[in-house]
Amino acid sequence: MDSYDSFLSPLGRNLHESVLRKMGQVIASRTGDLISFAAGYPDPMGFPWNEFREIANELLAGEDGSVLQYGPTRGYRPLLESIVGVLDARGIRADLAEVMTTSGSQQGLDLTARVLIAPGDVVLVEVPTYTGAIAAFRNAQCRLVGVKQDHDGINIEELDATCLRERAAGSRVNLLYLVPNFQNPAGILLSLEKRARLLEWAERRNILIIEDDPYGDLYFEDVASAAETRPLKADDRNGRVVYLSTFSKTLAPGFRVAWVAAPAPIVERFDTAKQSMDLMCGILDQRVVHQSIVRGVLARQATPLRRLYRMRRDVMEQTLREQFGDQLTWIQPKGGFFLWASLPPGCACEPLLAKAMEQGVIFVIGSAFCVDGSGHDRVRLSFSWPSPERIRDGARRLAAAMQLKAVRT
Amino acid sequence: MDSYDSFLSPLGRNLHESVLRKMGQVIASRTGDLISFAAGYPDPMGFPWNEFREIANELLAGEDGSVLQYGPTRGYRPLLESIVGVLDARGIRADLAEVMTTSGSQQGLDLTARVLIAPGDVVLVEVPTYTGAIAAFRNAQCRLVGVKQDHDGINIEELDATCLRERAAGSRVNLLYLVPNFQNPAGILLSLEKRARLLEWAERRNILIIEDDPYGDLYFEDVASAAETRPLKADDRNGRVVYLSTFSKTLAPGFRVAWVAAPAPIVERFDTAKQSMDLMCGILDQRVVHQSIVRGVLARQATPLRRLYRMRRDVMEQTLREQFGDQLTWIQPKGGFFLWASLPPGCACEPLLAKAMEQGVIFVIGSAFCVDGSGHDRVRLSFSWPSPERIRDGARRLAAAMQLKAVRT
Repeated sequence: MDSYDSFLSPLGRNLHESVLRKMGQVIASRTGDLISFAAGYPDPMGFPWNEFREIANELLAGEDGSVLQYGPTRGYRPLLESIVGVLDARGIRADLAEVMTTSGSQQGLDLTARVLIAPGDVVLVEVPTYTGAIAAFRNAQCRLVGVKQDHDGINIEELDATCLRERAAGSRVNLLYLVPNFQNPAGILLSLEKRARLLEWAERRNILIIEDDPYGDLYFEDVASAAETRPLKADDRNGRVVYLSTFSKTLAPGFRVAWVAAPAPIVERFDTAKQSMDLMCGILDQRVVHQSIVRGVLARQATPLRRLYRMRRDVMEQTLREQFGDQLTWIQPKGGFFLWASLPPGCACEPLLAKAMEQGVIFVIGSAFCVDGSGHDRVRLSFSWPSPERIRDGARRLAAAMQLKAVRT
Repeated sequence: MDSYDSFLSPLGRNLHESVLRKMGQVIASRTGDLISFAAGYPDPMGFPWNEFREIANELLAGEDGSVLQYGPTRGYRPLLESIVGVLDARGIRADLAEVMTTSGSQQGLDLTARVLIAPGDVVLVEVPTYTGAIAAFRNAQCRLVGVKQDHDGINIEELDATCLRERAAGSRVNLLYLVPNFQNPAGILLSLEKRARLLEWAERRNILIIEDDPYGDLYFEDVASAAETRPLKADDRNGRVVYLSTFSKTLAPGFRVAWVAAPAPIVERFDTAKQSMDLMCGILDQRVVHQSIVRGVLARQATPLRRLYRMRRDVMEQTLREQFGDQLTWIQPKGGFFLWASLPPGCACEPLLAKAMEQGVIFVIGSAFCVDGSGHDRVRLSFSWPSPERIRDGARRLAAAMQLKAVRT
């Protein structure tokens, strides 16, 4: 057969691609030396390899067959119990009925899309916001409506006005999606004052907040504290928050183990949906993560990782200042992996990317994160993966790309 | 909040539960000694523990950061290449653009549901058929229409008549779902003659066949041969077959690594859909599976596993004959994990299950596999997991349950 178009479902015909995944393919297919500021990958140097090897060695001794057997969809029960402990350390009280594992936080977003988003719904998101959420939510055939960010997070006045306007126009508006800690891509930390106001707002407007928190542990101690990363979920008295988090940034992304903490009726629906999606998360992965928690490996990771990524941020900021002067501007990241830079007037990110690739450096175009068609004057630069030397080298290449006349439009 | 019903999507309100997953929960929550003929679990005694430990040890040495890093959605490229080799051994020629990994074959079913099934479609299935497919497909809001099986597989006359009838009534009928080798639950081996006829029929009626093949390697050499398990995909000249298979039964289910072999345009759509579902399969899992293939572990598994499960089948058949005489009847399984038994007249599987649980034995009710409302006089007995002694003990308990008067309705 030449064409399978007539066999596709409406969704199959209109699938939304992840821009980040596509960039990954570009990197993989390109030959020669390429410095990537694109992918938000952790540095494998920071993975606790010895501990993982020791744990895997013990688990694979063959004395406990369940290590590689089918298991419950919700997750390996001792892991769920230790996740309850991880949540507790973040100020979140949850019982076992309120927690489940997911195959990466991406699956938490997909579960949200399938269980909580009806076709035609309006879902409120920040401008900019995470592309993986954009793709998952759009596949549920909703309309994403963007709300601008201030330096301390989402603008609540615009949020409320947008919600009321969309409802007045007849739309179902049930969900707000947020990345409060060191947002992907903007790197912004939502202020504690706004967190409190958002919870109050969600109650007043009958909204559920999808709180995506992959980076909360990775605050930079020169400018941020653990207290400032306190999840909204920690103060969620009325069951308004679906909290997503992951071990991808603190242990390793190769284990596809993340989790949801949400009101029990929502977890129960997510569980049922996951049954027909992939039965369960990888069992060995779950066991390795569980052992990493109970043996203190996870806890010991935090301080050195904060230092590692803070140092990378410092190198990137310093180098960008040296190379670009005031031609690039940004809000200093207080944690996480990303720096969200504004390009000088007349410089658009799409032609710049083409030039940058010629110079051997890659980033993600700002427009990929913006549901309102904006972002063409922005780039997301990830500082988590390249070594300091590569960061410096990459910034030089980027500067070379920007100085080409053709970039100015 | 008390109720989240108003926040659910139509799918969230109407999710279909997997009966098998539910049975798993029953087993997990029940205290005391319970013999399970319910779950189709492989025996962990058959897992190559030493080889896995050795492989994991090497992979986790920390010399190759990509072992635990993010990776391409389609799969680790060397694994895809070795899957092409596995397919070749089954008579299937595929190139890399026609292969991708999935998080268990369940995700292959979910991808099928999302990309290839539109709401209102009719999907043709066997009676009985695999419950995981029933749940995944129903979540795409299709209507499943059943076609009866003969001793050598699906009845093609009824299949064709059903297809024509449904199309005449205005339904879109694009897909036939089949488990040709040692079907779950009926244990039936589709004859080679019918395989050829089905391919010809699919071409004539413009149908795609979803061929689900988890058990093909596990034929029992007293009554079946490798040649008889030749996938339909091997003779798929016109790109009519989407082939799903897995390492869950030959290596271990705890690694969530399965794969799809399908026409390139379908794989490309599945890849895009998976991007927003879970980004990728577990990377360590993929690497362990890849090493298991290239080191010959997978190939060495086949013969002992065939012997192991054939011996289990023998024990179960012999014991059932001893305990039940002609009160239970079945078609001898020529491979796989399952025996599909007919109960004596007047005995229904649902009340029998309640009685069986009192006796400390569990199975899956036949009606769970039948989309046409039948199957109340059937039970699926899995012989793969319990030891011979437990099989004998379980059969005695089942006999005790059946002799209770209350079971006769």
